[in-house]
Amino acid sequence: MTVSSAESRNGNYPGKGIGEPVGVAILGKGTVGTEVLRLLAEFSDNLEHRIGGPIEVRGVAVSNLDKHKDAPEVDGIYLTDNARELIDRDDVDVVVELIGGIEYPRELVLEALKNGKSVVTANKALVAAHADELSDAANAAGVDLYYEAAVAAAIPVVGMLRRSLAGDQVQRISGIVNGTTNFILDAMATSGMSYEDALAEATRLGYAEADPTADVEGHDAASKAAILASMGFHTRVTYDDVYCEGITKITADDIEAAKQSNETIKLLAICERLLDDAGNTVGVNARVHPTLVANDHPLASVDKSYNAIFVEAEAAGRLMFYGNGAGGAPTASAVLGDLVGAARNKVHGGRAPAENPYANYEVVGFGEVHSRYHINMTVNDRVGVLADLARMFSQAGISLSAVRQEESDDGAHLIVVTHAAQERTLSEIVDALTNHADVQAINSVIRLDA
Amino acid sequence: MTVSSAESRNGNYPGKGIGEPVGVAILGKGTVGTEVLRLLAEFSDNLEHRIGGPIEVRGVAVSNLDKHKDAPEVDGIYLTDNARELIDRDDVDVVVELIGGIEYPRELVLEALKNGKSVVTANKALVAAHADELSDAANAAGVDLYYEAAVAAAIPVVGMLRRSLAGDQVQRISGIVNGTTNFILDAMATSGMSYEDALAEATRLGYAEADPTADVEGHDAASKAAILASMGFHTRVTYDDVYCEGITKITADDIEAAKQSNETIKLLAICERLLDDAGNTVGVNARVHPTLVANDHPLASVDKSYNAIFVEAEAAGRLMFYGNGAGGAPTASAVLGDLVGAARNKVHGGRAPAENPYANYEVVGFGEVHSRYHINMTVNDRVGVLADLARMFSQAGISLSAVRQEESDDGAHLIVVTHAAQERTLSEIVDALTNHADVQAINSVIRLDA
Repeated sequence: MTVSSAESRNGNYPGKGIGEPVGVAILGKGTVGTEVLRLLAEFSDNLEHRIGGPIEVRGVAVSNLDKHKDAPEVDGIYLTDNARELIDRDDVDVVVELIGGIEYPRELVLEALKNGKSVVTANKALVAAHADELSDAANAAGVDLYYEAAVAAAIPVVGMLRRSLAGDQVQRISGIVNGTTNFILDAMATSGMSYEDALAEATRLGYAEADPTADVEGHDAASKAAILASMGFHTRVTYDDVYCEGITKITADDIEAAKQSNETIKLLAICERLLDDAGNTVGVNARVHPTLVANDHPLASVDKSYNAIFVEAEAAGRLMFYGNGAGGAPTASAVLGDLVGAARNKVHGGRAPAENPYANYEVVGFGEVHSRYHINMTVNDRVGVLADLARMFSQAGISLSAVRQEESDDGAHLIVVTHAAQERTLSEIVDALTNHADVQAINSVIRLDA
Repeated sequence: MTVSSAESRNGNYPGKGIGEPVGVAILGKGTVGTEVLRLLAEFSDNLEHRIGGPIEVRGVAVSNLDKHKDAPEVDGIYLTDNARELIDRDDVDVVVELIGGIEYPRELVLEALKNGKSVVTANKALVAAHADELSDAANAAGVDLYYEAAVAAAIPVVGMLRRSLAGDQVQRISGIVNGTTNFILDAMATSGMSYEDALAEATRLGYAEADPTADVEGHDAASKAAILASMGFHTRVTYDDVYCEGITKITADDIEAAKQSNETIKLLAICERLLDDAGNTVGVNARVHPTLVANDHPLASVDKSYNAIFVEAEAAGRLMFYGNGAGGAPTASAVLGDLVGAARNKVHGGRAPAENPYANYEVVGFGEVHSRYHINMTVNDRVGVLADLARMFSQAGISLSAVRQEESDDGAHLIVVTHAAQERTLSEIVDALTNHADVQAINSVIRLDA
């Protein structure tokens, strides 16, 4: 392998050349695209200094020209409904993808990468589904693929996993990565309102979309969990690998019961390294589900629509990152940070560290991870029921950390909290309890953060 | 300016060559150096994948060979007391400086940079005093200068300011960046103990050094404030620019009074952009002083020796980063993250964004910033004193947000909380109060976070 002269070893490569403009194509002009255009204008002098050359927006691709042509932020900027023609231009160096959806942006991003353009995307669904294909294309062309805005907007967790913890070993990532569901759960906890009322409030205030499915069913958080697990464990984890359970079944009673035990229910994305007894990694897992968090844990006090991500690494210990996880301006901040990185590399040479799945751990199914269950059931109020049910747990090898029984009009409420056991075993015992003659109803099953 | 061919524009530059070893010299083998060596051995396979070639430690420079030669972590590694000879070796690509002090490491780092070696340092005092000279040398040679570990260990705030917020405008940084003083203040708040007893406890547990001056007088935090302000505001701010007041005068009474008003005393490093009425930046300031923080502010609940840094940026909004701000392993994690970055650039080409003081704002003196004061004094208990003192504030143009008077045996305790006013004016009125015939004593003056 040839080793170059000392001069060209590092830095000051003949790239675009210091001072030359970096051409940018922006695909999509929704909330984030509009904010990106506004900030590019406001910060242009600063960005030029930070990049080493000015950003020049070559055009903005939109689906409906009529809707945007009179908007002030595209004044003097080429507007087109032909995204392909825009990204194929020779004077475009970086493509910013802000369209949403998966298939159409996938084609555009692949085409851009293959043509030597670096790409910045905020599209979590795209990255969670196709990081492998996109990274391969970026690597083949020697260009950058950045997606900080795909996870928790301006909270720089992707950059942190990409770079800051590059000399460490990430053990676990757990976080609140969806603002809509955190707003709903927080509203329920603060006001005692039902899930339905809290969702209506979130919709009214613009925190939930007209169709809230992707948020409340946990799909959005699952995409982010896949991205975090892939970066953190150097293993390809896709959206389909992530167990996903949303918040639609959480009731005001669940929230109240959590309060009674000094806990808070949060929708957590959990990415975990599974170790054998000798401490060797046997696989990784990513999942999203409502989780009881002790009130003295920093994640418990993350309120409103804020996001927070907890990272545990071998040497660094516990780190937490907190901020706005959504919204036009915070997402645009992350997009612009990535754009400066990609543009800087076009001017100065070099590439950002790419997704790097060298470790290639087995992605372990959810049934094999260890969970703790908080089971709330209504049982017949007769002598011997508690002993009978306790024996079921014990025969399944599950030990209990707490049992609480309360009388009520329609039978007895029995609350059982287990120690950590394999998810599959816990799930089987819930099935068995459901079919037990003395169990009238399983009112809720909520996992505890281990 | 020549634009190179598409192939060499970005990535895959002829650097050291993929797979070639990156030679590293480590200067210093204290707590951090020892931990760096341990982790380099433990993570070697992972680091090779992340860098693109293996790390090879060419040697470790120590001041006293006899003290280290039998240590297991240098088994098979060249140990020397001649640091210059080690960094001058042709097969050393990256120098890791973990010596401490300023003048000697400054000479070594400059020599390394001038000879084309990239440098990773954890030395906050060195960077806070000489970032300009070191950055110039790194830029001239086209190599990297990394110092994530110089501020808050593994909390990646330097990387975040360097890269993640590169497309945003930082307005304010405020943080707990010294673990020793946070431990002492937290111990005082939790147990009611005196400053002296809490310091003794911190020393006993290893949180405070035998000579705690640099921590308790705020010098350590001031170095970090200088680095954060320089990165955040793209302006050279040095240690000497930072107003610095430590925690040695904080009493158990102060802590108790803060509790009464739902506040907590923290030693904050505050870096601030000063704006005129039109919102234009007129200067920047960095300072360190004990600060009353409202209990519902996230910084108030940062306990023990943890660090946390709050960053407010125009588009990103409020971000917080929390974690271990000191200790061998967390500091080594940051050093290794930087080492991977520097080594990767040696293999793949490119340079990390350097300190970039293009904005060159005026560094405004402390007297000109706006503060809020919490003044606790003992006054003569006679009719008209309160009115008299209130008039003094009013004549100085300072409005009061709260006044509380409590009877005591030796006179009346008067607690005055001001609205924001210029530090110089507030300081002058404290002088005037000190000389007032009816003021027996100024018991404490503590600033509030504005």
